[in-house]
Amino acid sequence: MPYTQDLTSCFADTIGPRGLDRGDFESALEATAPGLAGIGEAYADGSLPLLRLPGRRSDLDELIRLADRYRSDFDEVAVLGTGGSSLGGRSLCALADRGFGPPAGAHRLRFMDNVDPDTWEALFAALDLRRTGWLVVSKSGETAETVAQLLVVLDALDRGGLDAGERMTAVAQPGDSTLRRIAAAHGISVLDCDPGIGGRYSVLSVAGLLPAAIAGLDGAAVRGGASEVLDPVLAGAAPDSIPAAQGAALAVAAYRTREIAQTVLMPYADALSAFALWFRQLWAESLGKDGAGTTPIDALGTVDQHSQLQLWLDGPADKLFTLVTLERAGLGAEVPSALAADPGLSYIRGRTIGDLMEAEQRATAGTLARNGRLTRVISLPGLDERAMGALMMHFMLETMIAAHLLGVDAFDQPAVEEGKILARSYLAATSRRAT
Amino acid sequence: MPYTQDLTSCFADTIGPRGLDRGDFESALEATAPGLAGIGEAYADGSLPLLRLPGRRSDLDELIRLADRYRSDFDEVAVLGTGGSSLGGRSLCALADRGFGPPAGAHRLRFMDNVDPDTWEALFAALDLRRTGWLVVSKSGETAETVAQLLVVLDALDRGGLDAGERMTAVAQPGDSTLRRIAAAHGISVLDCDPGIGGRYSVLSVAGLLPAAIAGLDGAAVRGGASEVLDPVLAGAAPDSIPAAQGAALAVAAYRTREIAQTVLMPYADALSAFALWFRQLWAESLGKDGAGTTPIDALGTVDQHSQLQLWLDGPADKLFTLVTLERAGLGAEVPSALAADPGLSYIRGRTIGDLMEAEQRATAGTLARNGRLTRVISLPGLDERAMGALMMHFMLETMIAAHLLGVDAFDQPAVEEGKILARSYLAATSRRAT
Repeated sequence: MPYTQDLTSCFADTIGPRGLDRGDFESALEATAPGLAGIGEAYADGSLPLLRLPGRRSDLDELIRLADRYRSDFDEVAVLGTGGSSLGGRSLCALADRGFGPPAGAHRLRFMDNVDPDTWEALFAALDLRRTGWLVVSKSGETAETVAQLLVVLDALDRGGLDAGERMTAVAQPGDSTLRRIAAAHGISVLDCDPGIGGRYSVLSVAGLLPAAIAGLDGAAVRGGASEVLDPVLAGAAPDSIPAAQGAALAVAAYRTREIAQTVLMPYADALSAFALWFRQLWAESLGKDGAGTTPIDALGTVDQHSQLQLWLDGPADKLFTLVTLERAGLGAEVPSALAADPGLSYIRGRTIGDLMEAEQRATAGTLARNGRLTRVISLPGLDERAMGALMMHFMLETMIAAHLLGVDAFDQPAVEEGKILARSYLAATSRRAT
Repeated sequence: MPYTQDLTSCFADTIGPRGLDRGDFESALEATAPGLAGIGEAYADGSLPLLRLPGRRSDLDELIRLADRYRSDFDEVAVLGTGGSSLGGRSLCALADRGFGPPAGAHRLRFMDNVDPDTWEALFAALDLRRTGWLVVSKSGETAETVAQLLVVLDALDRGGLDAGERMTAVAQPGDSTLRRIAAAHGISVLDCDPGIGGRYSVLSVAGLLPAAIAGLDGAAVRGGASEVLDPVLAGAAPDSIPAAQGAALAVAAYRTREIAQTVLMPYADALSAFALWFRQLWAESLGKDGAGTTPIDALGTVDQHSQLQLWLDGPADKLFTLVTLERAGLGAEVPSALAADPGLSYIRGRTIGDLMEAEQRATAGTLARNGRLTRVISLPGLDERAMGALMMHFMLETMIAAHLLGVDAFDQPAVEEGKILARSYLAATSRRAT
């Protein structure tokens, strides 16, 4: 398994009375068994196609060929899409690009997930349209923001005398949709995504792996990491040997027995910052319904020690903490002894910034626990495609199992339709510009 | 005033029983009077120096001269600092740089707020050290992460035969500190920051305005916008004419009478994404103490409609929403009628992406209210330095007034010291590399 999970600091007998009663946790863990069995059945009967993705390799060759074409034809690639059509790919691509531009030979991907006119003006000013490739991702093919983005880009290409079909690929579910009709009219190829895999569960599909492949990442390794986490569930392992089942039991027992209504995910790695946003969507949309659900909060170590930690330690005890830590000892630039002769610097003399990161993550976990806060630690030896695939499958499973415990449907998002309809009616009522 | 605040959708008589009782709100608003008077007194006796910053201009000339030198000597500038020493400047600089690199003639600022060894490796690989300037910001001069960053950069400059004094400026409070001793040893100039202005309240000081000036922004306009918000308070205006007092009364009445323990800030502008993180620190560290405080959640419209909105509408009714909207009608690229002939596109035909943004923000505000969620809307005609200064002063005042209502000290952060000490002791216990 590419990670370990430590729940030691979640119980009343370790962190004091706000911690969980072991019996309450064990009951919740036992109650995950039907959910786990349901996942096995859904795999067997094909009713949850996302469970088939980790083991699939047959679609990767075509995806790699397409990615290679993007890598050779273009300097930059922009991805049009929002929510689940953006966050999965963005989380993976963060492994390759840490915000400093791509390393030599790699490609920069820009995830365009909004319709801010200032951002779009900046984008068109920054891009050389002749050297830019585009992906357009919308499962339904009807997402208003993505369709608007696409039309605006098509207009810009048209004005530049550039052929859209040569530099654009769409991803949508089969069947008629606005996106597919536009694509057909402009000679844009469309890759199928499975109608049975919702956006927030789509990172292991072409929606996540195509951007990742363009960024130079290994999609087979991502799926391989996911398999390592999923396989024991499919093999019928007991709940107490499945970290995702333990995590779901932890969250639900904390909610029900300790009124812990918020769940904080705090990775200690800049490259996992987008992953925390991916988790925020996954947890919020899957569990937030029928008046229930706990609120996910993204964070980043060490940064949020200087922002949110005061509230976490001294404010209401209404949060469950999950720290994702990496082994960093000895990594990174070193503070040379000659520069740290000052007596006040003895603590850092000869240490690396990786040593500091390592000390900070241990100290935060320890301080949260000492203050009676429920603290789970997920430890990774390092961060690569396999680790990301494992982490993402862990949290998809944990979310599905928690939904089962809470009695909600992990795969719908019924409440947001009202706003979408309202936005369209407001927009339709806008007076059109004289054109 | 550069913005308006609309509380219509916060009351039981408009959104149903989860809304506030008008009497409860009025009582809370009346209770802000002593807090407001205290702010006036603190201005008069100089005990809250942050209140003097909006009216100050005397320090700007030196700051602009220094910024001009950075702009002429360097292609890029990296800012070392974390928490309040980073988020304020980052929020302002987002006005100039939307993530697409700086516009022509402007400078890219990189805010280095973490000690991730992978990020630092990527930074050193991306930068031309000869063409890079540095700012180092730590009020106490003792922040472990910032001191470690500084030492690592000094080592890199030393190896490159580059003089630190020529390309680095530090910002710290007066008096002995580790940062000042290191600066003195390397010929680095240090600008004073006021010991009475904590990091999260420092955006209007040199800590925020120096990075902003390097990015080409007008610090006088930022302070001018802040003055427009502060001056009525100093003039003794009544609580019901002060938006920040209304906002504080809203948050505290919602917390006390409706158990609303979370507060969501959702601007509809990519350039306000960092501002939402600045607010998150301000609110969390100022109010989260003595077991009280509500939890701030950052969001971004339209993006989080596809991520968090399902939970907000259909999950627990435990959140207060603040949407920050801009007038966007008619702005941005237009969807030409010829490209939108498809009948399914009638709603967007001839509209601009600004029209879509405008419709989305109205629809989300309306949908939240229709679902009985407390929804405040802060409207800006546009986004510039004046508007940012006004928004930031609004939220600093709202936070201070809310702290007064809650009976907590808005300016300390006692709980985080334990973790800092623990991290140093862990790091000190790390075995040193053989060097």
